Amino acid sequence: MHWRGSSEGGCVPHSAAVFGAAGFTGALAARLLHAHPSFELRTVTARSDVGCRLDDLYPYHRVPLTLEQLDLDRHADVEAAIVAYPHGASAPLVKELVQRGVRVVDLSADFRLRDRATYEEWYREHQAPELLRAAVYGMPELYREQIRAADVVANPGCYPTATILALAPLAREGLIGQVIVDAKSGVSGAGRAATDKTHFVTVDENVSAYGVPRHRHTPEIEQELAALGSAVRITFTPHLLPLDQGELVSCYVTGNGGLDGVDLDQLYVDAYAGEQFVEVVANPPGVRDVRETNFCRVSVHRDARTGRVVVFGAIDNLWKGAASQAVQNLNLMFGLPEGEGIS
Amino acid sequence: MHWRGSSEGGCVPHSAAVFGAAGFTGALAARLLHAHPSFELRTVTARSDVGCRLDDLYPYHRVPLTLEQLDLDRHADVEAAIVAYPHGASAPLVKELVQRGVRVVDLSADFRLRDRATYEEWYREHQAPELLRAAVYGMPELYREQIRAADVVANPGCYPTATILALAPLAREGLIGQVIVDAKSGVSGAGRAATDKTHFVTVDENVSAYGVPRHRHTPEIEQELAALGSAVRITFTPHLLPLDQGELVSCYVTGNGGLDGVDLDQLYVDAYAGEQFVEVVANPPGVRDVRETNFCRVSVHRDARTGRVVVFGAIDNLWKGAASQAVQNLNLMFGLPEGEGIS
Amino acid sequence: MHWRGSSEGGCVPHSAAVFGAAGFTGALAARLLHAHPSFELRTVTARSDVGCRLDDLYPYHRVPLTLEQLDLDRHADVEAAIVAYPHGASAPLVKELVQRGVRVVDLSADFRLRDRATYEEWYREHQAPELLRAAVYGMPELYREQIRAADVVANPGCYPTATILALAPLAREGLIGQVIVDAKSGVSGAGRAATDKTHFVTVDENVSAYGVPRHRHTPEIEQELAALGSAVRITFTPHLLPLDQGELVSCYVTGNGGLDGVDLDQLYVDAYAGEQFVEVVANPPGVRDVRETNFCRVSVHRDARTGRVVVFGAIDNLWKGAASQAVQNLNLMFGLPEGEGIS
Amino acid sequence: MHWRGSSEGGCVPHSAAVFGAAGFTGALAARLLHAHPSFELRTVTARSDVGCRLDDLYPYHRVPLTLEQLDLDRHADVEAAIVAYPHGASAPLVKELVQRGVRVVDLSADFRLRDRATYEEWYREHQAPELLRAAVYGMPELYREQIRAADVVANPGCYPTATILALAPLAREGLIGQVIVDAKSGVSGAGRAATDKTHFVTVDENVSAYGVPRHRHTPEIEQELAALGSAVRITFTPHLLPLDQGELVSCYVTGNGGLDGVDLDQLYVDAYAGEQFVEVVANPPGVRDVRETNFCRVSVHRDARTGRVVVFGAIDNLWKGAASQAVQNLNLMFGLPEGEGIS
Repeated sequence: MHWRGSSEGGCVPHSAAVFGAAGFTGALAARLLHAHPSFELRTVTARSDVGCRLDDLYPYHRVPLTLEQLDLDRHADVEAAIVAYPHGASAPLVKELVQRGVRVVDLSADFRLRDRATYEEWYREHQAPELLRAAVYGMPELYREQIRAADVVANPGCYPTATILALAPLAREGLIGQVIVDAKSGVSGAGRAATDKTHFVTVDENVSAYGVPRHRHTPEIEQELAALGSAVRITFTPHLLPLDQGELVSCYVTGNGGLDGVDLDQLYVDAYAGEQFVEVVANPPGVRDVRETNFCRVSVHRDARTGRVVVFGAIDNLWKGAASQAVQNLNLMFGLPEGEGIS
Repeated sequence: MHWRGSSEGGCVPHSAAVFGAAGFTGALAARLLHAHPSFELRTVTARSDVGCRLDDLYPYHRVPLTLEQLDLDRHADVEAAIVAYPHGASAPLVKELVQRGVRVVDLSADFRLRDRATYEEWYREHQAPELLRAAVYGMPELYREQIRAADVVANPGCYPTATILALAPLAREGLIGQVIVDAKSGVSGAGRAATDKTHFVTVDENVSAYGVPRHRHTPEIEQELAALGSAVRITFTPHLLPLDQGELVSCYVTGNGGLDGVDLDQLYVDAYAGEQFVEVVANPPGVRDVRETNFCRVSVHRDARTGRVVVFGAIDNLWKGAASQAVQNLNLMFGLPEGEGIS
Repeated sequence: MHWRGSSEGGCVPHSAAVFGAAGFTGALAARLLHAHPSFELRTVTARSDVGCRLDDLYPYHRVPLTLEQLDLDRHADVEAAIVAYPHGASAPLVKELVQRGVRVVDLSADFRLRDRATYEEWYREHQAPELLRAAVYGMPELYREQIRAADVVANPGCYPTATILALAPLAREGLIGQVIVDAKSGVSGAGRAATDKTHFVTVDENVSAYGVPRHRHTPEIEQELAALGSAVRITFTPHLLPLDQGELVSCYVTGNGGLDGVDLDQLYVDAYAGEQFVEVVANPPGVRDVRETNFCRVSVHRDARTGRVVVFGAIDNLWKGAASQAVQNLNLMFGLPEGEGIS
Repeated sequence: MHWRGSSEGGCVPHSAAVFGAAGFTGALAARLLHAHPSFELRTVTARSDVGCRLDDLYPYHRVPLTLEQLDLDRHADVEAAIVAYPHGASAPLVKELVQRGVRVVDLSADFRLRDRATYEEWYREHQAPELLRAAVYGMPELYREQIRAADVVANPGCYPTATILALAPLAREGLIGQVIVDAKSGVSGAGRAATDKTHFVTVDENVSAYGVPRHRHTPEIEQELAALGSAVRITFTPHLLPLDQGELVSCYVTGNGGLDGVDLDQLYVDAYAGEQFVEVVANPPGVRDVRETNFCRVSVHRDARTGRVVVFGAIDNLWKGAASQAVQNLNLMFGLPEGEGIS
C-alpha cells in the first residue's frame, strides 16, 4: 500500500481484505493488493494457519501481515474484498459481505454459473442462490461494463479464462460446430494441499489426464460460449504437468460451415484490438511467455488438410487465471485504471 | 553380450551393429543389444564423435565400445543391424546393408510410408524406393508375422506408436468418424542436437505446441488407421513438455454412428489380450508408469454427455517409441522370444 | 520370482517378505525381490494402504501383490526379510523376526549405530538394544564377510552410503584432518509422506539446506570413518533438489599432513579394484550416471592451490542408498552372487 | 521508459543502452531499463541476432526494440550503458565508451580483479589495463560511495555476489580461518549458448560439480574477503542444478579463534541493518524466496559440535547476480533512489 491515490489529488486508498489468504491464489491476491497504489490491504484471514505471518508462509510474496481468524465485525471498514474460499464455503461469506456493503470478487465457482440447477448438478446445493442474478461473470474482456457496476463478481476459473479468450472471436461469429479442449496445467492449479497428487515424486517426469470425462470447468465454458453465440457441448480434458505455474489450452474447432472463407488472423486481431491483457501472436505460445503476468496469449491456426482450426490460449493460472484477474476486476469496480497494480 | 543362446543348447549369439549410435535412440539401442543374451553387439558407428567411447558420451548406458566410422567391409559378419540415421540419410545405408544380407531395423521414417508419393510430399525425394514394397511396418501388435519374415523393418515413429496402439481397436471395427490427437512429449524426442529449442531454460517451466498444423507423423498414423479400416484425416498436434522421456497421446474420437452400443472396455481388453507389451488400464495413464520400459499403456473413456470417446496412450518415446521396439522387432526377425532383452 | 535357483541345479528360491512395502524404499525392495531369480516374494505388508495392490500404488514397479496387515504367524515360512519401517518402529519387529529365525535387512537407523548412547542421543530410546552387538553394518564394500554370516544387517543410510564410499580410501590411510560434507538429494529421499516440504510447488525451481546443523546421518558417518582409521567430527549439510532420485555428496577434506605426496587416483583405483558396484571416474559424476542402479560413482580431485582434496560420491538414494543395497546384502547372506537381481 | 523523472520536477530521463542484449543477462538488463522510470532505453545491440526484435527472442521481457549492430557513432547521446559482453571482449568496448563520456556498468569479469596479474593468470591478457585503477567493484553494500562517483563499475560475478554478502560480516571482523564454498546454480547461469551441457536432457534429473578445482570466480571472492580483512585461500566448487534461475552458496567457515564468543545473529543483523536488498533470515533460504528479485537472503548457523559456522546466501543469478545489480549500480551512479526500477 502506498499512501497516494490512483489519480490526481490526495485520494485515500480503498481498504481491502483477502479472505482465505493462506492458499496459493489468496496469497497472491494479498501480494498484489499489498503493493497496489490504490488499495490498502488491511486484513488477511485464513482458516488454518491463523497467527502465521504471510511472509513466513510465502517468503517470496513479502507481505508482512499476520493471518487472522474471520471476524467481520472487526473488519467493518473494508470496502473491497477478494474471497478465496473453496466452492460451497464461499457463498455464505460472500452473501454476508454484500449485506455489509462490501464489494466482492469471489474466486470460487459459487457464482460463475448463472443457472442454479447447473451449479447443483456439477457442484452441490447452492448456499446463496438469491445472489446468482446479481453476480457478474468476471471476465473484463466480455463483461467490462457490468463488472464496473457489480457488487459481486465471480472470477472465472483458470481453464475457462484461457479457453473462452481463445474461442470468443469464433463463438461470437457463431462459427463453432464442435470443439474439443485439451488443457495442460502446472501443479499450482491443484492448490496448496499436500497430497499424493501434488507430491513432487508423483508429478516430476510425468504427465497424465485427470477429471476425465467430466471436469467441473466444462459447464462454465459452455455457458459463456453459448452467451457469445455458439451453444455447443464441449469435451474438456485437463492434464497435469511438471511445472508450477502456467496453463495452456489447445482448442480444436470443427467449423459449422461458415468457417472456410474467414480471415482468422484478422478476426482475432480485431477482436482483441483494444485489449490491454490479450496478446494475439503468430506462433503457438508457451506458458513461459505469460508467467507471472495478467496476459493471455492467443494464437489461431487453420489446418488446411482437415478444415479444422486450432486455437491456443496461454495464461498463468495463478495470475490471469485467478488473482491478477481478480485485481483487474476490482480495478474496474472501483473506477481505477484497469491495469493498475498488475502491469 | 552374454555367451549363451536364447534357447536350449549352446547357440552362438547373432552378431549385431548399431549404425548411428551417438544419438539418443541409437545409443539406447546399443545398450539394449549390448546386454541382450542372444545378440553380440560388435560395432557402433557414428558420423560425429568417432573415436569417443560410448560410455563417455552416455555414462548411464555403460556400453564399453568405441564409436567407429562407417566401413561396411570391416563389419562383414554383421547379421543384425539397427540404423539410427536421420530421415533421408538412412535409405542408402539400409539398401546397402540389405544387399549384403544384413537384416535391418530402420529407426528413420524412410520406409514407414508405403506410398512413395506420400513420403515425398511430407519428407523429400526417396533414396531407395525399390525397397518400399519389401519393408514391413514394425509394429509387432499389428504385423507380427510379416516382421518375422522381413529383411527390412521400418520402426514406427514414437507418436504413431502410441497413437496407433490407442486407436487400433476402434479403427479395426471401423468405428472412427473423426479423430483429433493431442500429443505431449518429453525433450529427448527432439534428439541430442543442442539448440535453442532443447536448451534447459527454454523448456523448463514451459509447454507449447510445435509442428502446427502439419507434423510429419500425421500421414504415418493415417496410413495405419486406414489399413485397419478407418480412413480418416486426423489433426495431430504435438506439445513439448519439461520432462526428458515419455510421451502421452490424448485421442478424441467422434464415432461414426456405430460407437454407441459398444462395450469399450471389453473391446480393448480383448484386442490386447495376448499382448505382452500393451497394458489396458482403467485410469488415465501417466508416462511415468512406462518410463524405461517397452510397455504402452492404453485407457479408453466414454464421455456420455457428448458421445465422444477419449483414448490415452502412454509410452517411453526412446523405448517403445524407438529403441526397445526395434529390439522387439529384431527378436521376431531372429526367432527369439519377443521380449528377450527388453523385459 | 522365477522358478530356478541361483546356480546350477533345480534349487528352490528362498521365500522372502518386505515389511513396510508402501513407502518408496519398501516398494522398490519388493520390486527387486519380486523379479529376483533366487528369492520368491511371498508377502508385502503395510500399515496404511492394507488391501491395496502394490501395482496400483506404484504402477511402474509392476508387483502384482496385495499389501497385507502384519501377521507373523501367517508368514511362518519366510526366510528372508527386508524391513522398511520408520526409525524406532523397526527394532521390535526385527527382534521378533530374528527370534523366529528370519534373516533380516533393516532399512531403518535402529541398528546402524553400534553405540546405544549415540543412538539415543540422536534418535530416541532404543527398543531392542540386545541386538546391537549382533547387527552388522550393511555396507558390503567394508563388511562383506561379516554380512555373509549375519542374521541382522543394518542397511546404511543413503547419505552415509555415498559419503563413506567417497571417503573410505582416505580414511583407511588415516589421511583425513577435517572433512566437510555438502550433500544434495532428490525428493524421494524425503519419503512418500505428502507434506508442504514435498509439495511440487515447494521444491520446483528451488534448492535449500535442511537439518542444519545436526542431521541424523552425521554420527553414522563419523562412526564408520573412525572404524576405518579417521576419527573426525564432520560437518554434514544436506540440501533438497528439484529431482526425484539421486544423491550427490561433495566432500571437502583438509589433510592431516600426510596427504601431499599421495597419488590419489591410484589410491582410489586400488581401493575399489575388485568392487562390482563402485566406479572410480575422472570427472565429477552426475547423479544421472547412476540413476536406477546399485552403482556408486566416486571421483577424487586435489586442489593444488589450497592443498585440499575434494571427493564426490553419486548414488541413487532409493537404490544403492536403500533398496538395491538391501538386496545386495541379502545376496551375501544367502550365498548368492552379490549382484544377482540388481545388475 | 516513462516520461517522468525520478524525483519531483519534470526531469528528462537518462538515455541508456545495453550492449550485448541477446544473452540472458543483457536481455534482462534491457527489460529493467526499458521499464525504468528514470532511464530511456534507446539502443540494444548484439553480435548475433542483429535485426531480431528483442520481444521475439524473449517474449516474456516484452521489450519492443530491435537488436542493432554496434555503431557508437549512431548512439552518441547515450549517457548510461550496461555492457554484457564475454570476458575479454568487453574491455575494449568499455574503454571506448569511457572515452566518449558514457558511464558504464560492465557485466564481464574484465574489471573485477584489481590486480592485472591475477586477471591474466585466471583469464587472459588484459585488453584495457589502464582502466583497472579507475574501475569500482560494483557491490553497493561494500562500495556504495565509490560507485556513486565511478565511470566504470565492474558488476560482480553471480557466485561472488552471494558469497561475499554471506561472508562479509565475518570477514570484516577478521574471524575467518578457513572457508569452503559449495555453490549451486540454475542453468541460466551457463548462458544462452546451446551446448551439450545446457541441453535439457543433460540437466534434468541431474546434479554435478563443474569447474573443479579452479573456477574463475575464486580470485574475485578472495580479493574481496581480503579487502574486508580476511586474507584466505578458499575452495570454491559450483554445481549445476535442474532449475532455471537461482543460486545458493553454502559457506563452511572454520574460525580463527575469535569466533566462539560472537553473537552471530546480531553480527549479521547489524551488518545489514540499513541494506534494502539484503535479508538476514533465521532459516536456510531457498532460491525461490528471491526469484526474480534483487534480494540476497543470508542466514548464519553455528554448529556447536564442531565449532564451525555455516552461512547460506541465496540470490537470483540473473537479477542480483547480474542485471538488477547492474541497474542498482546505475541508480547510484546517476543519483537516483538505489532501488528504482528493481523493487
